[in-house]
Amino acid sequence: MSKKKLNRGVAVVGAGMSKFGAFSDKSSRDLFVEAFQSMRKSVDKEFNPADIETIYIGNFSSDLFEAQSHTAPIMADVAGLAPRPAVRIEDACASSGVALRQGILAIASGLYDIALVGGIEKMTNLPTAEVTDTLAAAADTLFEVPAGFTFPGFYAAIASAYMHKYGMQPEHLMNVAIKNHENGALNPNAQFGVTIPDWMQGRIASAKKKGKPVPTWSDHWDYLHDARANPMIAWPLRLFDCSPITDGAVALLLVSEEIANQFTDHPIHIIGSGQASDVALHDRDDLTSIAAARLASQEAYAMAGVTADDIRVAEVHDCFTIAEIVATEDLGFFAPGDGYKAAEDQVTARDGAKPINTSGGLKSKGHPVGASGAGQAVEIFKQMRGLADERQVAGDIPLGLSHNVGGTGGTCVVHVYERRN
Amino acid sequence: MSKKKLNRGVAVVGAGMSKFGAFSDKSSRDLFVEAFQSMRKSVDKEFNPADIETIYIGNFSSDLFEAQSHTAPIMADVAGLAPRPAVRIEDACASSGVALRQGILAIASGLYDIALVGGIEKMTNLPTAEVTDTLAAAADTLFEVPAGFTFPGFYAAIASAYMHKYGMQPEHLMNVAIKNHENGALNPNAQFGVTIPDWMQGRIASAKKKGKPVPTWSDHWDYLHDARANPMIAWPLRLFDCSPITDGAVALLLVSEEIANQFTDHPIHIIGSGQASDVALHDRDDLTSIAAARLASQEAYAMAGVTADDIRVAEVHDCFTIAEIVATEDLGFFAPGDGYKAAEDQVTARDGAKPINTSGGLKSKGHPVGASGAGQAVEIFKQMRGLADERQVAGDIPLGLSHNVGGTGGTCVVHVYERRN
Repeated sequence: MSKKKLNRGVAVVGAGMSKFGAFSDKSSRDLFVEAFQSMRKSVDKEFNPADIETIYIGNFSSDLFEAQSHTAPIMADVAGLAPRPAVRIEDACASSGVALRQGILAIASGLYDIALVGGIEKMTNLPTAEVTDTLAAAADTLFEVPAGFTFPGFYAAIASAYMHKYGMQPEHLMNVAIKNHENGALNPNAQFGVTIPDWMQGRIASAKKKGKPVPTWSDHWDYLHDARANPMIAWPLRLFDCSPITDGAVALLLVSEEIANQFTDHPIHIIGSGQASDVALHDRDDLTSIAAARLASQEAYAMAGVTADDIRVAEVHDCFTIAEIVATEDLGFFAPGDGYKAAEDQVTARDGAKPINTSGGLKSKGHPVGASGAGQAVEIFKQMRGLADERQVAGDIPLGLSHNVGGTGGTCVVHVYERRN
Repeated sequence: MSKKKLNRGVAVVGAGMSKFGAFSDKSSRDLFVEAFQSMRKSVDKEFNPADIETIYIGNFSSDLFEAQSHTAPIMADVAGLAPRPAVRIEDACASSGVALRQGILAIASGLYDIALVGGIEKMTNLPTAEVTDTLAAAADTLFEVPAGFTFPGFYAAIASAYMHKYGMQPEHLMNVAIKNHENGALNPNAQFGVTIPDWMQGRIASAKKKGKPVPTWSDHWDYLHDARANPMIAWPLRLFDCSPITDGAVALLLVSEEIANQFTDHPIHIIGSGQASDVALHDRDDLTSIAAARLASQEAYAMAGVTADDIRVAEVHDCFTIAEIVATEDLGFFAPGDGYKAAEDQVTARDGAKPINTSGGLKSKGHPVGASGAGQAVEIFKQMRGLADERQVAGDIPLGLSHNVGGTGGTCVVHVYERRN
């Protein structure tokens, strides 16, 4: 673990995203332009895109999803930024969290003052089964995939190991899903950015007829454990334990600390950054914790000079409900085995002591894999700037965190954000 | 173009590569381990791989070639380097040249002192036609590929535009191929690392029978213009104008300048680094020059405080013969339209005034696309350290250069190397 310091500080001064969802009429180019324009609008003061000096694009596999590689200069082109250097970063679902880190290093190196960090994934072109196969390329395809594993299976293995060790029941997982859907319902950019999904309509009609209050997500506890409404995918994970397949793009504007006030009076400083890798899942001693997440967060906390307790809001990588529970333990928010209790006790709710995934998380906001890490930074930016509208966490938010995982933890990258004024 | 300086200097203190070729029994993991061990042996003094702090892996599309993404942590694992952070860089055929640049920025940022830069590509699993289709993903697959272009066609278009503008004849191109095969014949790691290819055997037997000297590559000028021996691929490019399909891996050890003498008494300092992007080929005004190469080299020269004339040896991106000719002009070695004359006049030969591609280049050493840029750095390291054996350029080599292109110039990255003692 590096205990060294960056040669200079970096701040986020703009953050935007496309709508996340399934868009048959949009390519990743369209989505990136949408995100780029959203980012431009988010910059408070004067900003000329021509001043951007370098570009990092997180993307998992435009190769397999769109038969298009060499993705970064294409995104530079469509955003009108050629001939600026453009680099694609691939670390599976951590691609744009790692791209954010590379943008930070590029500025800290002294070579650049202004960097664009993007994330893109256009997944819904392929049938669902092919998407699952494509995502499996992020696992170890020599040992794990031939054994029959795809990602729901991997995280099901993590969930069952966790249940065995800590006594969690499958029903506990749905607390995470319900919370994140309730948050996502308040996020206009979320894939499931609706208060009431279509499949609840029957219940709503029935409630209205009987003069009862209209039910919300959490009123559907029983329904979410009905095998027809919420079928089993890979025991103990049901459909609503899984994040969706999503098209989406994100754009962040990073600048060196010295010039941040040219762009806004309220820069969000990135004061901690950590990244670690791990061996493939089949090669680990313990499935109930992701070592790379522990290491990355320790590195980020050390750089920032803060502890887990200091973090006010966090976006964590909830590709499956169990992943959020494990993440909140790996990050040190809760002791090992206590994560599922914290979710049950509403500690991680928007008005809880440690709000997690106020954006809706990957679960409800959507999971365009290569864009998800940068998307977490958008939510932290909005929450810390007080721009999160209906889902705004109350009070000052001096410190935030994002936690982005690639695969089953082959990569993890964690960032700590600070608002100073 | 950034005129800023890096916050601190970086040097290459180790450089190794696998044999380049077609290896049906090796995966990219095997090849990377081979390169990593070769790099370890190249370090003069004590070196503990556990001291490596971060890893950058250039790779074009393990996704499409091996159905394996999330490649960087897998390489970290097989080299025994988990949990160090591992990042895959994709910029088409410039992937590992750009990975080298990211390694430099990471060290300059202050966060790391020791970085491993790798490049890998395992291409020969697929039939040739599928490889050609896969490589086409590095072009603009929305506009260019549906129009019928693959890479031989792109570079054929560049060649015919160049011929039209400067009066070059198709025969001139073969000067580049012959030179690079003669160089590659002296490189034991080259794919065509043989003095006499099999297809020349008949001529050799005939010469011996007649008591004549055994012919070399350059004696086969007429043969290389025979349509049966050297068939047309995309006019004016023949088979021997094209680089081969190759499996291979490379590993470089970068350290901060301050600690370089712990590893060797003869570090190779990287004093200039430049990168630029460009719009897709179909969108450019001029096909006879690659703007990103001009910009990247100008940036690298400015950072290094040197001019094109100061460079003693260079490895340039000769994916096709015409690419080397255009590169030597874009880099400022020769005036526009003079590159093909310089090749004809042997200026770019090993004993010429400006030796180009002494390794054999992509043309003869081989072109495992994601590894090629880092592979260029291996040759510059060897030449500047006097380790190039039979192909060693005579005299001191204080300054070297590498030039790595992605696609048709959507990306270009240039590095300038200095030996001080």
